[in-house]
Amino acid sequence: MFSDEYFMNLALQQAEIAADKGEIPVGAVIVCQNRVIAKAHNLTEQLTDVTAHAELMAVTAATHYLGSKYLPDCTLYVTLEPCVMCAGVLFWAQIGRIVIGAPDEKRGYARFQPSLLHPKTRLTTGVLADDCQELLTAFFRRLRS
Amino acid sequence: MFSDEYFMNLALQQAEIAADKGEIPVGAVIVCQNRVIAKAHNLTEQLTDVTAHAELMAVTAATHYLGSKYLPDCTLYVTLEPCVMCAGVLFWAQIGRIVIGAPDEKRGYARFQPSLLHPKTRLTTGVLADDCQELLTAFFRRLRS
Repeated sequence: MFSDEYFMNLALQQAEIAADKGEIPVGAVIVCQNRVIAKAHNLTEQLTDVTAHAELMAVTAATHYLGSKYLPDCTLYVTLEPCVMCAGVLFWAQIGRIVIGAPDEKRGYARFQPSLLHPKTRLTTGVLADDCQELLTAFFRRLRS
Repeated sequence: MFSDEYFMNLALQQAEIAADKGEIPVGAVIVCQNRVIAKAHNLTEQLTDVTAHAELMAVTAATHYLGSKYLPDCTLYVTLEPCVMCAGVLFWAQIGRIVIGAPDEKRGYARFQPSLLHPKTRLTTGVLADDCQELLTAFFRRLRS
């Protein structure tokens, strides 16, 4: 039951909530021992705040919940490849694992060298990538119509 | 009166407040038309939150004050070279100019390629660098003693 697809679907639900609010649909959940300890979705427009990305808010929520600045035993599931800012957040939090849905070739962290991620962070990409991408594509299609 | 040194001294005052709280002494101010619209200091320990860097909180405060996600007419003064996370924040905010005190060769943004900064952001480094560095050196000296 507790597969990567299962948790990515929860992140997708968060992304759908963002879309319903007119936000670019990106969602994230943080999981510790198969338990979701944080969930968040992009709120940059609603909060007029460039830092209100799903990943950043999920990390802040998870660290508050655990009472620790570090998340080595946690996995972040996020529907879109994190940006530079969020990669920096995940580095500082020393997150144990990152699972990404769709790639972001324009604003993603992966095109920078040396790697922005913490050397101890494990990485999985492409989980439900098509579903994650389709939500974004449909959002921008509606925006333009 | 309104020189880079003047505003960097205000950022240094913020760093000193951080040191008094037992936080790594980094301070930042954001200036718009010679007016300070945000000031902040590192609070990562007090808030148990890796995102509570001076620059990130200053950007959030400035964007709230201006009611805009973007800061193209603003200058950030920060006592230490921003990290990857904060460089990402400053990219998204499209900040007009960044003025840095001391370099951070270990955790600074500048060692990554391509540049993490927004192409329109102007950059000045080394303003009161010795004062900014000395505050950090003294802090870590005390911590070890």
